[in-house]
Amino acid sequence: MSKGTVVLAYSGGLDTSCILVWLKEEGYDVITYLANIGQVEDFDAAKKKAESLGAKKVFIEDLRAEFVEEFIWPSVQASAIYEDRYLLGTSVARPCIARRQIQIARQEGAQYVSHGATGKGNDQIRFELTCYALYPEVQIIAPWRIPEFYNRFVGRKDLMEYAEKHGIPVPVTPKAPWSMDANLMHISYESGILENPKSHAPADLYLMTKNPEDAPNSPDVLEIEFKKGVPIKVTHVKEGKSKDTPLDIFSYLNEMGGRHGVGRIDIVENRFIGMKSRGIYETPGGTILYHAHLDIETFTMDREVRRIKQGLGVKFAEMLYNGFWYSPECEFVRHCIDKSQESVEGKVQLSVFKGQVYILGRESPKSLYNEELVSMDVQGDYDPCDASGFIKINAVRLREHHRLQGEHRSKH
Amino acid sequence: MSKGTVVLAYSGGLDTSCILVWLKEEGYDVITYLANIGQVEDFDAAKKKAESLGAKKVFIEDLRAEFVEEFIWPSVQASAIYEDRYLLGTSVARPCIARRQIQIARQEGAQYVSHGATGKGNDQIRFELTCYALYPEVQIIAPWRIPEFYNRFVGRKDLMEYAEKHGIPVPVTPKAPWSMDANLMHISYESGILENPKSHAPADLYLMTKNPEDAPNSPDVLEIEFKKGVPIKVTHVKEGKSKDTPLDIFSYLNEMGGRHGVGRIDIVENRFIGMKSRGIYETPGGTILYHAHLDIETFTMDREVRRIKQGLGVKFAEMLYNGFWYSPECEFVRHCIDKSQESVEGKVQLSVFKGQVYILGRESPKSLYNEELVSMDVQGDYDPCDASGFIKINAVRLREHHRLQGEHRSKH
Amino acid sequence: MSKGTVVLAYSGGLDTSCILVWLKEEGYDVITYLANIGQVEDFDAAKKKAESLGAKKVFIEDLRAEFVEEFIWPSVQASAIYEDRYLLGTSVARPCIARRQIQIARQEGAQYVSHGATGKGNDQIRFELTCYALYPEVQIIAPWRIPEFYNRFVGRKDLMEYAEKHGIPVPVTPKAPWSMDANLMHISYESGILENPKSHAPADLYLMTKNPEDAPNSPDVLEIEFKKGVPIKVTHVKEGKSKDTPLDIFSYLNEMGGRHGVGRIDIVENRFIGMKSRGIYETPGGTILYHAHLDIETFTMDREVRRIKQGLGVKFAEMLYNGFWYSPECEFVRHCIDKSQESVEGKVQLSVFKGQVYILGRESPKSLYNEELVSMDVQGDYDPCDASGFIKINAVRLREHHRLQGEHRSKH
Amino acid sequence: MSKGTVVLAYSGGLDTSCILVWLKEEGYDVITYLANIGQVEDFDAAKKKAESLGAKKVFIEDLRAEFVEEFIWPSVQASAIYEDRYLLGTSVARPCIARRQIQIARQEGAQYVSHGATGKGNDQIRFELTCYALYPEVQIIAPWRIPEFYNRFVGRKDLMEYAEKHGIPVPVTPKAPWSMDANLMHISYESGILENPKSHAPADLYLMTKNPEDAPNSPDVLEIEFKKGVPIKVTHVKEGKSKDTPLDIFSYLNEMGGRHGVGRIDIVENRFIGMKSRGIYETPGGTILYHAHLDIETFTMDREVRRIKQGLGVKFAEMLYNGFWYSPECEFVRHCIDKSQESVEGKVQLSVFKGQVYILGRESPKSLYNEELVSMDVQGDYDPCDASGFIKINAVRLREHHRLQGEHRSKH
Repeated sequence: MSKGTVVLAYSGGLDTSCILVWLKEEGYDVITYLANIGQVEDFDAAKKKAESLGAKKVFIEDLRAEFVEEFIWPSVQASAIYEDRYLLGTSVARPCIARRQIQIARQEGAQYVSHGATGKGNDQIRFELTCYALYPEVQIIAPWRIPEFYNRFVGRKDLMEYAEKHGIPVPVTPKAPWSMDANLMHISYESGILENPKSHAPADLYLMTKNPEDAPNSPDVLEIEFKKGVPIKVTHVKEGKSKDTPLDIFSYLNEMGGRHGVGRIDIVENRFIGMKSRGIYETPGGTILYHAHLDIETFTMDREVRRIKQGLGVKFAEMLYNGFWYSPECEFVRHCIDKSQESVEGKVQLSVFKGQVYILGRESPKSLYNEELVSMDVQGDYDPCDASGFIKINAVRLREHHRLQGEHRSKH
Repeated sequence: MSKGTVVLAYSGGLDTSCILVWLKEEGYDVITYLANIGQVEDFDAAKKKAESLGAKKVFIEDLRAEFVEEFIWPSVQASAIYEDRYLLGTSVARPCIARRQIQIARQEGAQYVSHGATGKGNDQIRFELTCYALYPEVQIIAPWRIPEFYNRFVGRKDLMEYAEKHGIPVPVTPKAPWSMDANLMHISYESGILENPKSHAPADLYLMTKNPEDAPNSPDVLEIEFKKGVPIKVTHVKEGKSKDTPLDIFSYLNEMGGRHGVGRIDIVENRFIGMKSRGIYETPGGTILYHAHLDIETFTMDREVRRIKQGLGVKFAEMLYNGFWYSPECEFVRHCIDKSQESVEGKVQLSVFKGQVYILGRESPKSLYNEELVSMDVQGDYDPCDASGFIKINAVRLREHHRLQGEHRSKH
Repeated sequence: MSKGTVVLAYSGGLDTSCILVWLKEEGYDVITYLANIGQVEDFDAAKKKAESLGAKKVFIEDLRAEFVEEFIWPSVQASAIYEDRYLLGTSVARPCIARRQIQIARQEGAQYVSHGATGKGNDQIRFELTCYALYPEVQIIAPWRIPEFYNRFVGRKDLMEYAEKHGIPVPVTPKAPWSMDANLMHISYESGILENPKSHAPADLYLMTKNPEDAPNSPDVLEIEFKKGVPIKVTHVKEGKSKDTPLDIFSYLNEMGGRHGVGRIDIVENRFIGMKSRGIYETPGGTILYHAHLDIETFTMDREVRRIKQGLGVKFAEMLYNGFWYSPECEFVRHCIDKSQESVEGKVQLSVFKGQVYILGRESPKSLYNEELVSMDVQGDYDPCDASGFIKINAVRLREHHRLQGEHRSKH
Repeated sequence: MSKGTVVLAYSGGLDTSCILVWLKEEGYDVITYLANIGQVEDFDAAKKKAESLGAKKVFIEDLRAEFVEEFIWPSVQASAIYEDRYLLGTSVARPCIARRQIQIARQEGAQYVSHGATGKGNDQIRFELTCYALYPEVQIIAPWRIPEFYNRFVGRKDLMEYAEKHGIPVPVTPKAPWSMDANLMHISYESGILENPKSHAPADLYLMTKNPEDAPNSPDVLEIEFKKGVPIKVTHVKEGKSKDTPLDIFSYLNEMGGRHGVGRIDIVENRFIGMKSRGIYETPGGTILYHAHLDIETFTMDREVRRIKQGLGVKFAEMLYNGFWYSPECEFVRHCIDKSQESVEGKVQLSVFKGQVYILGRESPKSLYNEELVSMDVQGDYDPCDASGFIKINAVRLREHHRLQGEHRSKH
């Protein structure tokens, strides 16, 4: 008799294929689920493979549009960036993937979900917090944290042997000496030879972006139009070509950014689990959007609102990184940030060239920029004398501080 | 009889030359003071000009070394960046310049200081808050905020006429259609044709950095060594050349960054005075250091310390931008940030190429990075099972939240 | 011919009566405006006085209900408290009063508004920022900042003489040796003999609260019911008496708090203007509400939401204190805080006794408190083993830190 | 053969006595350790009991002085308060107790430490994080999280039976229907009948403070003198009696606060573990100090320094509550807070009466309070006109915001 049904996040690769078979061995019915979030993948082959390995049911789900609209767009609004550098391409995909997994589990009456994430990483947390938040009674089977599993499969060799024994197709090309995670927003690379933080990344690592040295010798100039803090249109200024649905906009920015080698970073970051790890990321479209949004936001948003929103954005990035997308605090912060974006509207022109994004200019019907007020040539509705009082009052405190120090200095 | 002595921050240009003469007309003795903070300038010519215009005394002060060590270095430690983009090259120079002006005023027994900053900008505030903080009894003469002055000199034409009448040498080359401010750290450009935020900056604007399109087609690779959060050595990896005094290090990074077009930004920012202004900046060496320091800091500093330090850095940047370098809060924050940098030590390798800085690798005797702990191939002193408990406990709150919402949903 | 019309915030006292006449002397038509925000005042007498002194029109406006609902309630939601102690009773009244003044000015076609606030205080700022925010073209006449006025009226004696000369009724009772400001929320006392921060306040100072030593010897027990973070009902548990409109609720809490001497503080605070001042406040009802709201909020709100909301509340209190109620940032923060209060609902029982508020118990249909989960006697849906993993993972970082320090210690 | 040596935090009560015997049964050598941190306890009896139960060694350690100086004092400097109400009396004792336990373990060559904290609480975390931070290789035995233990001892009855069987003296008085934790700083009460958050606490619960209704009918007036943010002397103003060592000062404040019923709170708080719990606390001396320190701090510290310090204090309180005293971030924050206290010096007079603390006045040689500057009667070195400019410049942003909204309103 079956122990119950598991919905397994299945990638088609060696690891999750072995997990699929192992779960069956353990007495579970297995439903596989593979999300299309923009990674390059042979989804048909994965489907057939899962079926041939005994999956009771196979789900291949195209989540690309909802990934962009419901997950990437709020991150753009938030200027979400972890530890000042990482644009959170992996983090933001996890709640999107896990949400559908839970929907399938509920719909199929499955009590269990399973995934192939390792026991040292962030992804296990992001997946599972989403699962617990949306389906509190769910049971999670994380084989890489179960001693019987991880003691049996100590190295890749063990997986290969198990695969051969159980009729799991074994990959013919050798594994890259690092691991990677790809989606519409980015590709991350870590582990293996990258674990030495001093070693430079190999030049042939990157799949989404061109090496800047090989990128075109002249820039492409784009105009991105925003409304409520999200892009609603991108136009190639010279070619006149434009895109105006979220998925098309983002894909086009990936193409442009990729062509010019935009968005590569090599960092050491702090995992939620408390250790430092080295990661290499390429986020072409996301990097362009980060810069363009920052520009239109500062152009249209009041200084003090922005200061508060910036603080909320830092918190949002941490929540996202740590896996708390579906938490009361993240829902609250998303609501607040969304509110802050009401007037973030207008057009930004920028060029992409040799790995870099250059903002060239911006315009907006809602800008707080007042050319006359700021002009050095026009006085406008501004009395320079007021500045004297402003400075004098701001100095009251500083002078008092000095006075007190002076008193003490002279006494001692 | 003289109304007293004024120490005038004198640039040698048309504006401050007119102010010099006007102050004399108004009955003051004028001492001029020109700080060398790395700008390209004919200091001798300025000296002679000031003398010929009747300055009682002329001070030309080389502040470059103290500018780097006492002002730029703390900003590097703080990762000081205003509104996520501006590296504060102008802001950080102001307290350095004004401090010496105050020293001269005290030493020369002058009750007054004067400057040529406009009444709409940030610099008047930065200068004057420094003056009031260090010399609370000082009187400040800011002609561009005095109606008799600014109503008399409405446009450049009025200054030119005044200059001719009073024997002030009139510039022969036409003024650029924008204003600029240069020092060792950066050049800023604003006003004039740049006031339209939509207009692209002219290609020939930049003086410190090469146009990335014209920059070399292969990168230079540098190694920067840090101790206590500041660079103590920079080495050109291929050429073996290195620099190890603060001024030499910074100048060399400027040279390298300038050659590769690094550090150009075009932004709209929020002035302290409450208006938005458009500024274009080039900060070659500062940009390289910002990235390198961020890398070594994250590599060596505990995650939670860094989170707190990051918040302090944001506050520091605001203080710096607003002119509060010499304030109790800024002294306090600098102390705290300095404390946080005790273990920020090690070497970062990076390449500069076509406007971009790429971090390549890093090493440190004090890193909290633990290759064995993080390795996917070694278990190390880490039990994956612990992660299950960690996640489950983190989920307690999320599940409770869901439970409550469910109760309410089912009731209504 | 008239210079134009001024709407003067008129209190009926000596100062603003003199200002009224002085404004007329200066050539303005004067409309007086007196807001009833709950202070004890003979409004009719003030009306007649203003008319007799030549006011073109006299407005007496009862703002008590809107003061409670639109200004005090959001402050309760925010747990607004300045510098950890001051409940902002004066600050919160200012935008309420100035808003109506601006409405009158617009409706009467007045270009000018005037007030009697001093030049060293916070209130001038709170009034005027509200005016500029709601009526940017307004001109403000602040006599206590106009040299011709304040040099003419150096002391109270000058005002008295002027009053006698111009037929202004002169107060017969001597002025208290301090100044006070009263409204529905609180009375503040400052200046005069209170300026010495060491002197104890005289026992007869307080008008709104009984001296705790003379307060009843047994407590009153109240139950306050909240919805969306604001009180909707207060019940005297023993007497069964209850109130359920905002104004009635707040007035009743004032009565109860006043009877028991609740809400007295004596503090030195930091003014926006940069100086420290000593203030004594009594806020009976507001203090009860502060404690009750804090209790129901922590009972019903998620921990992390509350942490973020707490930070926003601190910012809100500063904005309120500094006069920025009508600012984009304060509107934004009020929106966010209001959102956070959606589930802040339930009943709190408390007693008031001898100057203190004691929370006794609370209940809520929306509480995240789960008696079974937290019980020491029931295990509930909680596995204690999970805590081991939770702690171990939280310790990863701490152990790494120790390891590194140990390495260094052993090396040196 | 022994499995090794355990240092057990031993209270002398039923639970830890059973744990002692159980550990021996399990094959460990047991060293007991009982910290005197000011709780009322028969330490001799506990010593004898432990010996009679087979403890290999017994440590009774008087930590009271170091508890006050090294743990309570930094908390006073920080104004540490959790969720706006809880003064952290239990939290702050834990690292003090665990530190000595680790010292003993190291000195005795013990690999293991053990404690009787439950699996749902905060204390297990506070103990263990301290242990891991100070002795990373330590092994922790937490019986209440070990299934074999907690499944065997499901209720108190099981413990009683076990005790009888193993010659453990069984308590003769019935257990109170709640649990409590006492130390020099406070007593906390929770669990049992207190788990219903609506039930009022019984009147006879409190052991450290008198019921305010039964407290003296006249106040005691105290003067507390601070230096570097910590009290150095307390004087009873009328009686002239004073104390000047940390332990004496704190004990005397406990006595005074206790006599007047000061420092009782009844709250629901958020545990680190993610659940809400109800706790009742009495903190007599700590409450007096909290108020007195707040007063002298605001009196002597610059406004903006205090704002930053306040934020650090909130973070410090969270760290303390969550058990991170010995963490890099807490060490960093303590350092920063300590720095902020350099000028926090002077005397505060206050009265304690019927459960409340009233600040009466304060003086300091280092105050930034400037009576002349703030005086309404003296102009001092302050020009009221400056305030006009200050306000006008602060309004620039608000007027721009209004302008933009107006434009939009008129368009739509």
